[in-house]
This record gives sequence, structure tokens and C-alpha cells, in this order.
Amino acid sequence: MHFASDNWAGAHPAIAANLSHQAAGYSAAYGDGELDHAVYRRFSEIFEREVAVFFVATGTAANTLSLAACNKTGGIAFCHREAHLIEDECGAAEYLTGGSRLFPVGGALGRMDAGSLERALARFVPEFVHAGRPMAVSLTQSTEIGTVYSLDQIDEIASLAKKHDLPLHMDGARFANALVSLGTTPAEMTWKRGVDILSFGGTKNGCWCAEAIVLFDLDRAKELSFLRKRAAQLFSKSRFIAAQFDAYLDGGLWLESARHANTMATRLASAIEASRVAQLAWQPQANEVFAIIGKSQADRLQAAGAHFHDWHMPHGFAGSITEDEALYRFVTSFATTAEDVERFGKLI
Amino acid sequence: MHFASDNWAGAHPAIAANLSHQAAGYSAAYGDGELDHAVYRRFSEIFEREVAVFFVATGTAANTLSLAACNKTGGIAFCHREAHLIEDECGAAEYLTGGSRLFPVGGALGRMDAGSLERALARFVPEFVHAGRPMAVSLTQSTEIGTVYSLDQIDEIASLAKKHDLPLHMDGARFANALVSLGTTPAEMTWKRGVDILSFGGTKNGCWCAEAIVLFDLDRAKELSFLRKRAAQLFSKSRFIAAQFDAYLDGGLWLESARHANTMATRLASAIEASRVAQLAWQPQANEVFAIIGKSQADRLQAAGAHFHDWHMPHGFAGSITEDEALYRFVTSFATTAEDVERFGKLI
Amino acid sequence: MHFASDNWAGAHPAIAANLSHQAAGYSAAYGDGELDHAVYRRFSEIFEREVAVFFVATGTAANTLSLAACNKTGGIAFCHREAHLIEDECGAAEYLTGGSRLFPVGGALGRMDAGSLERALARFVPEFVHAGRPMAVSLTQSTEIGTVYSLDQIDEIASLAKKHDLPLHMDGARFANALVSLGTTPAEMTWKRGVDILSFGGTKNGCWCAEAIVLFDLDRAKELSFLRKRAAQLFSKSRFIAAQFDAYLDGGLWLESARHANTMATRLASAIEASRVAQLAWQPQANEVFAIIGKSQADRLQAAGAHFHDWHMPHGFAGSITEDEALYRFVTSFATTAEDVERFGKLI
Amino acid sequence: MHFASDNWAGAHPAIAANLSHQAAGYSAAYGDGELDHAVYRRFSEIFEREVAVFFVATGTAANTLSLAACNKTGGIAFCHREAHLIEDECGAAEYLTGGSRLFPVGGALGRMDAGSLERALARFVPEFVHAGRPMAVSLTQSTEIGTVYSLDQIDEIASLAKKHDLPLHMDGARFANALVSLGTTPAEMTWKRGVDILSFGGTKNGCWCAEAIVLFDLDRAKELSFLRKRAAQLFSKSRFIAAQFDAYLDGGLWLESARHANTMATRLASAIEASRVAQLAWQPQANEVFAIIGKSQADRLQAAGAHFHDWHMPHGFAGSITEDEALYRFVTSFATTAEDVERFGKLI
Repeated sequence: MHFASDNWAGAHPAIAANLSHQAAGYSAAYGDGELDHAVYRRFSEIFEREVAVFFVATGTAANTLSLAACNKTGGIAFCHREAHLIEDECGAAEYLTGGSRLFPVGGALGRMDAGSLERALARFVPEFVHAGRPMAVSLTQSTEIGTVYSLDQIDEIASLAKKHDLPLHMDGARFANALVSLGTTPAEMTWKRGVDILSFGGTKNGCWCAEAIVLFDLDRAKELSFLRKRAAQLFSKSRFIAAQFDAYLDGGLWLESARHANTMATRLASAIEASRVAQLAWQPQANEVFAIIGKSQADRLQAAGAHFHDWHMPHGFAGSITEDEALYRFVTSFATTAEDVERFGKLI
Repeated sequence: MHFASDNWAGAHPAIAANLSHQAAGYSAAYGDGELDHAVYRRFSEIFEREVAVFFVATGTAANTLSLAACNKTGGIAFCHREAHLIEDECGAAEYLTGGSRLFPVGGALGRMDAGSLERALARFVPEFVHAGRPMAVSLTQSTEIGTVYSLDQIDEIASLAKKHDLPLHMDGARFANALVSLGTTPAEMTWKRGVDILSFGGTKNGCWCAEAIVLFDLDRAKELSFLRKRAAQLFSKSRFIAAQFDAYLDGGLWLESARHANTMATRLASAIEASRVAQLAWQPQANEVFAIIGKSQADRLQAAGAHFHDWHMPHGFAGSITEDEALYRFVTSFATTAEDVERFGKLI
Repeated sequence: MHFASDNWAGAHPAIAANLSHQAAGYSAAYGDGELDHAVYRRFSEIFEREVAVFFVATGTAANTLSLAACNKTGGIAFCHREAHLIEDECGAAEYLTGGSRLFPVGGALGRMDAGSLERALARFVPEFVHAGRPMAVSLTQSTEIGTVYSLDQIDEIASLAKKHDLPLHMDGARFANALVSLGTTPAEMTWKRGVDILSFGGTKNGCWCAEAIVLFDLDRAKELSFLRKRAAQLFSKSRFIAAQFDAYLDGGLWLESARHANTMATRLASAIEASRVAQLAWQPQANEVFAIIGKSQADRLQAAGAHFHDWHMPHGFAGSITEDEALYRFVTSFATTAEDVERFGKLI
Repeated sequence: MHFASDNWAGAHPAIAANLSHQAAGYSAAYGDGELDHAVYRRFSEIFEREVAVFFVATGTAANTLSLAACNKTGGIAFCHREAHLIEDECGAAEYLTGGSRLFPVGGALGRMDAGSLERALARFVPEFVHAGRPMAVSLTQSTEIGTVYSLDQIDEIASLAKKHDLPLHMDGARFANALVSLGTTPAEMTWKRGVDILSFGGTKNGCWCAEAIVLFDLDRAKELSFLRKRAAQLFSKSRFIAAQFDAYLDGGLWLESARHANTMATRLASAIEASRVAQLAWQPQANEVFAIIGKSQADRLQAAGAHFHDWHMPHGFAGSITEDEALYRFVTSFATTAEDVERFGKLI
């Protein structure tokens, strides 16, 4: 019963198989091999337009280099106050932008509130050198707490970004989970809404290590080429990432894996709702379930072999919680089995 | 006849197989899994002492974070003027150290000359704030041009570093090739000589992507932990690097692969020496062969299917070369076949 | 009626006179002249212990280099959410620390609340690489809104800093105003309370340009020497700063000027309290007065020749304000005349 | 007999007097006062076109922020191998550009050699991410060793910069000395030759602290505004710099002071040429004289009250020197007296 994180799973068998399949033979290094280019083209097909694709090593790299590509002197990037960028990347964005700042924006259920974003943006007056300059807005889809921005909500954020002439970044570490949750297309969820640059994550959804920056704003491509190299993120045998994405995107494996993970999350949520010892903290929309459980009950479940972690209460949580209870996070993945979920349901 | 680079090869079958083998099951993320720890212990065995091991994505990351762990305000790191660090990493070291400087040191055949290093170090007077402060010395083993520092030569560089109280870094992107070339042990080639921090490369020698910083100076371990995360180099599913190193180090595969590559280089060198249209630029000591070839002959060889690149003339090259000739580099790897070398020999 | 800012005044005549007096003759450059050293010794006398003194160009430089001297990889410095450091320095601290972060701490009346600081510090678990590492605490004395930390309040903040093994910085851009407000000594207000590093400002209190970092923790002195040079803050003819401080500290001019400014602020506050068209937003403790005034009344005052600016409402302001009113700031200085204050009193 | 450095002198009496004169009254802070704007206009007059002027604290700040305003990811700035930028600023340029690199270019007598610059530029192929990107060329006028680029020589460097689409920076820490040496106009020596950005120094020529960045390329002005603030170089009471420049530029004081210093240098050179114990290392063209003197003779001179320092031998020095001799530098300034020079002449 492994619900600790989607990055505790290994690689999907089809992805591992393709790595073996592609291991032989020679190929140009540094992202210029045939398979690399085939995968770049595949991304353009999937997004229904020309995109520029940059493989990087981690989601943190994808996020921070995306912001670095939008950098300004005195730059300020706006993201949700509990975004991975600001909470879990040890200041990588500040480091790799030479000290630009992340501005935390509030909002319920992991989503930036448009009003809060507007007020935050309004603090910065162009030409006023004392306070800094807005440089980008970043939203996370699906969010850190398993919710999803609707297309309308993305529109709302995007229109604020455009109004202030700012590029819009999407942290898609769990892009596929959001996509199948909304039942929409990659194009609809990104550039058609105004997203300019995307961290496209494969790792949490069944790859070993497959993260890419997908640029819709091709003018930043040259800048990103240098940034990636300079940030030590340009793989020599980049074929090994291409091979993963090749299998990942082939025949819809990525969507299937995400759908599976989301379904498992829904079932897990149902089991929790049905339980008398736990309650859902909020409705899951992707592959993460958050529940309020009595601490002694949580101990019992963990002792019985269920892996999951406690979680800090998100800002502005509207529910109620007693002192004997805590918030816990359960994450599902391509590897989660229906049996495990069922077993957990019985246990709880 | 693929001699373009050792990073044009894919992965050794045993490494690919282990990635498939380790793909199933759950494991703690971010370098804390069982296989990660088993590999860390394996490194300690191989180096005959406790070491701290940090997996990173690229050789550039290993080099630059190694230097960043030695960083000082106004820091200057000394390396050979043709080191990868200074020539081929787009200023990653300057970027990730917040602007510390690389000081190019001369020396024949890719090795820093001790006298030149001493003069370079002497330029910097402690407490003199106008000029900067030495912070580290970095040597490359094997070098960028396929030569190897002897143990005595490492001693000489190390004693200068110690005299100036500077940590000594070794760029071991081709560590195994140097090791089997010298016929020595990892311990003898590193910390027993005074090396404090090592970029240990697996990628060029048959891994997909397996680079590690090996710290002998454990006091810098905590610093490196934060640096690696902050530089976006901490893999979530780090098991995929562990799995590669697991196979790489198992049963001496790494040494066997390096020995094979070096042998192929020696044979290639013999073929070149035997040829009337080419001459060795200098004797190879690892898996890279540099030859001076008439340009039209080189064109002929490439047209016949031999992959290799021209190379800039290293500083202080003692040989002679005509206008119709150029310097070319040939690189062998675990994947180079005796047949290919033989075919090339016939061709040339 | 000039209440716009204390940096709209020029230089105190005694300071201008000393600049002329010291203009002739030769002196070692870069902080090593006789007058420089005399002033360093004077600082040690004033602080009743050995200190290291670093002249810099601006208060922003003093603050950010102070933090830079405490820098860590992934470092987080804690300051009040409305501190000059975080609100008015265009991210200089992030820039000059290579991307360390400022963490905003709440607290009424411009002072960090100890409970809020404790909760902020508690978010960061040592060794947890994902979130960053506390590196310093910074408090502003007097604060951005003209209040002053009592000695007990400094003790409270200092004890939290010590508990977390963090250096404590004091932004003393208006150090003298706080000092005379509390009627204490420089030693009592700083290192005896646990302050390790101080931005000592002279500019706002009658110098042209005289800012110094005063180090109580002498172990950081060498680091600061290099940092200052590298940040382009080492004056060649540093005598011109020494000459200002020489006059400033001579015969208690600095305390007299601050006392005058504070007295003028108190009288201004009384005039505002006595007025029917304005009310004090809070009681001033140094040389800044904040008042809530009807917007049309404020327009009238400005039209009549009073210089002052509107101000953003500080976080957590407890008072009430109508839509027709706004918050305004009045700043007094060594140059403020009793006549101007009286004239303003009549006007309002 | 003070020939140690032009920054050992204090301030010209006229400059000190103007500081006193301008000390009273109120003025907008942060560069927006009336006197500030009057001085900006004066610069435009002097340069015969609209310029943007940024006061900063030090020559190092002027140089490094000039380069920072030209910064690129992976940027490389080219300067003479003995430029102040690369030799004497503790890596400020690398620090404040977030790790861009300075590339040392050779050339006799302190001037970049056009051929060497061309070869250096040719090393960097656009789009090749491994090696970095040229971002600027910087020349020093007058040079670190008291020579001056002729207008033709500036043209030659400028045409290379233009050919590579690079901005051209001039380090004019001793701008006035070069100007009167060439007998040309500020416009002719700068933008008419292709200079885009200038470090205009007043400090070495009689100011206390008056350095400015003069932008001919106005498109970079907004960037520089933010850079300067963020680098802690925006003075609040900037009037104190304006007052210095106001006197400095008034009635040609700056040219007169430079002419005086150059004349003193010429006389000093004649005295050295006439001496049997010393010889000129090369002909001075501005206010620095370099001489080869027997070490014991130098000791004797210093013991007799002459202040001057030994100097490292510049790269490519064509003269001869014995073991008993060393190179020494003598610097004259507005404050150097004919009597002191004469006294030294007799002594030597």
C-alpha cells in the first residue's frame, strides 16, 4: 500500500523496455540525435503547433530555467504561496536567476486567487526602481494539493498576466493528471489559454527521469539553449530521455497512466469518505488525496503497511480539525494497484 | 566506424538490463532508497575509505558543484587552460559559484605544468582584496586530449594545492580510462595523492547518465547537499542512477569497459602510425587518439564512413603541421568494435 | 515646511566644514589613511569594545553586504515584512547574496513579532534540503514607520536568533534617532543585546553620504573586506567618508542632531493631535510621524507649501480610516526648523 | 613628493567649496534633484548629444554595471589582459553579472591589439552553447600604464566590436587625462568613435567621489536604473555627487586639472630620462610615469621622502631589466606641485 509519493515508483515497463531497445548504436550527442528530433516533432504534434523542447534533469530545473528565461533585473515572479517553486526547491529559482524574487500569492485549494494576484501585481509600479519588476506568473497544474485549475480559471490568470505584459509559466510536473482530469487537450490547457512556457513532467507519471521545458514563445529558445547548458542541464546522451518520452507518448501511454492514477485516487477518496475514522480534506481532482485522520488511526494504518505522509495544513483551509487529528497526503501513480487501494479501504 | 565521441554510444547492455530489472517496486526518493545506499557503500569500498557520494545529471554539474562547494568570495579556481571546465561548459562554474573565476594554467599535453601553476598562485596575495582569492585547483584525469597525469605528477600538483591550503578537485569524466591506463587503484589515484573531491563519470564509459561527486573531505557534505538541490540536480527517482552504477561497478564492468576502450585507442593509434597519410599528434594514454591528417585524406575517410571530428590545436603543441593538414580527434568507447578499428586501419 | 524625507536635506554645516578642512594633503587610499583609522578607533570607543568598521556607499549596501557576510547556500534571512531590505531595495539582498531569500515576518507597528518570528523559523528543519536554511535575522531600529524596539524587545528577538544559532543584524539607517529615543548607549542597544552586525547610518542624520557596517563578530571581517571590494563599495578616497563621520561623532553632534529631529517630530505630532482635520496613525518614537488626514485637507496643506508624501497602510494597522482619508508620512531631520513645524501647526 | 597614486590626493578646493555651498536647503533624493538634472544636462552639452548619466560610488561600480547592462547568458566581455576590470576589481564584474566572464586580450603598452582581439572573438561561434557568447568589448582610456589609444586605434577596436555586434565600453577612470593628451573633444573620443557606454571618472582628477556611467545607447537606460539601485549604488543625497561634478565641469576645471597632472608627469619623465640611475620604461602619455630603477636607488629615493610603488612588469614588455632593477610607477594629479617634481628631479 504505497501512497507515499508518485516518485517512489520506478519506471513503467514499456519505458524500461524502450531504454533497452534504444541502448545500442550511435547517435549525435547533446540533443541532436535522430530520436531526440523525433520526440521534439512528437511534442509539436501533441501540442498542435510548433514548440521548442528542452530536456532537463528535474522538475526543479524545468521550473527554474523557465523563469530564468523570463528574467529581468529586479525581477519578481508570482506563484501560489504553496507552489513547489517557492516551497520545495531550496531557492533554486532565486539562485539560477541571480536573485530574482518569488512573490507568494494566496488562494484557496492550491490555486492562485485572481484578486490576490491582481493586488500583488498592483504593488509594482513600472519605472519605480526601489521595488522590483514583475517578470512572470507561474501556475501549477495540477496543483500541489491535487486540485486542478479549470480552463476558465487558467484564462483568468492568463488575462492578468497579459494585462501586465508578463509571460505565463505552467508547472506541469503532473500535467497529464490535470489533462485527463479536465478531459481536454494539451493545446487547450496551455497555449490556447495563454501559457507561454511549460514544465512538462514525465517522471511522476512513469518515467525514470524525463522532464522537458516546452516553449510556445519560440523567441526565448536561443536564450534557453544557453541557459540550459550553463546550468549544467544539457545531457550528452540525451537519447536516454528521448527514449523515455518516445515510449511515454506512444499510443497514449502517458494519458492511460495518468487516468489510472487518477482513478486510483478517486477510489481511495471513496474509501476514505466511507470510513468513520477519516474524512477527505477536500475533493481530489488528480492523483493526490488529502485526508484528515485521527493520529492514532493513522499510526495504526501505517503500522499495517500503508505508506503515506502527514502534510502541513494549507493556508486558508476552511475545514475543521481537532488536536488529535492531522492532515495526511496519499499519492497514486501508474504503479498503484486496485488491490492495494481495496486493501487500504478494508483497513480503514 | 564511430569515433566521434564516447558520448555518441548508448548504454552497455548490462546497464540497460539492470535499469529494467530495478524498474519495478517502490523506493524512497531523493537519494534515500536502498539501492542508492548500497551504491554509496560500494563507492566507499572501491575507494577504500568512507566517502560521500552525490549523484548529479551531467559532468558539468559534477565539476561546477565541486567547485561551488569550495567557493569563496572573490574565489579563483585554477585549471588547465584547455580543461573542459573552462572551455566547454559555457561558464557553468562562474554561474553556479556566483561569479568566481577560472584561472587558465598552461602546460604541455593537456596537463597543468607545476611551475605555471605555482606562478599563477603566486599572483594572489592573501588579504589583498583587489585581486581575488585562490579557492581550488582542478585537474582532469584523463585529460581533454587523452593523456594521463602520472601519480607523481598528481603529487606535484597536490603539493602545490596543499601548500596554498587549497582543496584539489579531479575532473574524472574519464576516470576509469585513466585508472586502467596507470594500472593503479582508485584510492591511489585520488585521496592518497591529495585529491579532496572527484567528479566520477560513468556516462562516457557505458552508462546512460551516471555522474557522481565523490567527496573525500566529508566536511563539505552538508554544503553539497544543499548546493545540489538548489542547483536542480537532485533526482527524485535517483534509483535510476543507482541502478546504472550498480551494474557499472559490478564485477569490474567499469574497468573492463575502460580497458576495452583504451585498447581500441591503442590499436587505432597503431593503425595511424602505420599509415603514410596520417601521423599521431602525440601518444594516446587513454581512449582518445589525436592525429594530424591531410585534409583531403580526412575527407576521404569521412566519406568512407568514418566518424571523427577536427580539433583545435592545443596551446604549446610542439609538432609540425602543414597548411593542408589538420588535427583530428578519434574517441573509442566500450562500444567500439575491433572490426571497426581494423576496417579503419585498412581504409587509412 | 519640508517633511518629505530626511534624505532631502543636505549636509550639516559642521560636516561640510570638515570635508573642506580635510580636502588638502595626501592620505593612503582604500580605507587605510590616518583619518580612516582614527574614525575606526572612535567607533570602538563609542561601542565600548573592539569593532570592525566598513564604510560603504549606501544604506542598501550596508544592509545587503551585512546579510551577504552571513550567507549560506539556500540561506533565508528573516526581517519585518515592511523592512527597507525587503520593500525598498529592489532585491539587492537577493542579488548580492546570489539568490538567498528574505522571509517576511509580521508584527504590529513595524516591529517583528517574536511569536511570528518563531513560527517562521520553525518552518525550516535543519538538513532538510528542500526548503532552505535560516541564515540571519534582521531588525530595523528605528523601524520604517518611526517606532522603536525597546531593549526588552530586542532581547526577545536576539534570544530567538541565538536559539537558532543565527547572527542578528540591525538596520540602523536611523540608529541615532532610536538611540536618543531610548536614552540608552550604543553598546546597550546592540552587542549587549546580541546584535552581531550593524548598518550604521549617518546620511539621514546630517551626513552627505556616510554609511558603515559595524561588525561585532570580528570573525566575519575578512569576508566582508572581500565582499565590499567585490561589490564595488570600496572607496578609493575613503577619507571623504571618514571626514564626515569624524565631524558627525565629534562632540556628540550625531546625538544632538537626532535629538533635534525627534523633538521636531514630537512637536509635529502634537500639532497633528491638536488638529481637527488630522489624527496620528500611531505615536511616533523617532523622527517620523504618520497621520491620517482627509485627502482634500492634505491637498490643501501641500498646496500651502508643506512637503510630505502619502504612505501605504502597514500590515495589521489597527486604526480606522475612511475612504476620504489617507495615511501620510512626515519626516524630520537635523535641518527641520521649529519655525517650519510651528507654521505647519498653524496651517493644519 | 607624493607620487603613490592619484587617489591619495584629497579634493580640489573648488570642489570642496561647492560641497559646502550646496549643503543647505532641500532637494529631491535619489538623483532627481535640480542640481542633479542640471549636471545631467551639462554632460549632454559636453558630449554634444543627449546622454543618460548614472552616478555611482566607485570606478569599479561604473565598469561592472556598464558591463552588467550588456550582459547575456554565457556572456564574455573582452578587455586588455591588464585592465583594471580584470586585475584590480576582485571579480566585481563576474559577481555583478552573475558569472559572465572576462576574456583577457593581449597587446603592447596597455592597449588591446586589434589582431589579438579579432582572434579572441573568433573563438566564439554563435549558437554554439558550449563556449559562451561575446557580450561586450571594453577599452581603458588612458590605460592602466599611462598610455593612450589614438583615435585611430579606438576606431580599430570599435570596428571589430561593431562587426561582432557588440557594445563598446570605455573605462574612463582617467578620461580627462587621455582627453587633454589627445587634444580632442569628449564626443570625438567616445560616441563618434563608436563607444556606447563610458565610465566617466572624476575621483582621480580632483573629486572626492564622483563617478558616472555615461550612456550613449539610451536603450539601456531603464536597465541601468534598476541595476544601479539593485547593486546598492543609488545615492539618496545624490546632490553631493552632482555638486562635485558641477564644480568639476565648471569653467573647464576638469581639463585644467588633467592638463596640470599630465604636465607634471611629463616633467617627471624628463627628470627620470635625465637621470643616470633610472630610465623610462616607456613614454608616458597621461599622468602616470613608469621607470626602471635600481632597487637600492629606489630605496634611497623613498627614504628621502618620495612616495611611489613598484609595479608588476606588463605582459610583452620589450625593454630590458637587470635583477637589481625593478619597475616603479609614479602618478601625478591636480595636487602635484612643480616644486615636488623639481625636488624629485634633484634627488634622482
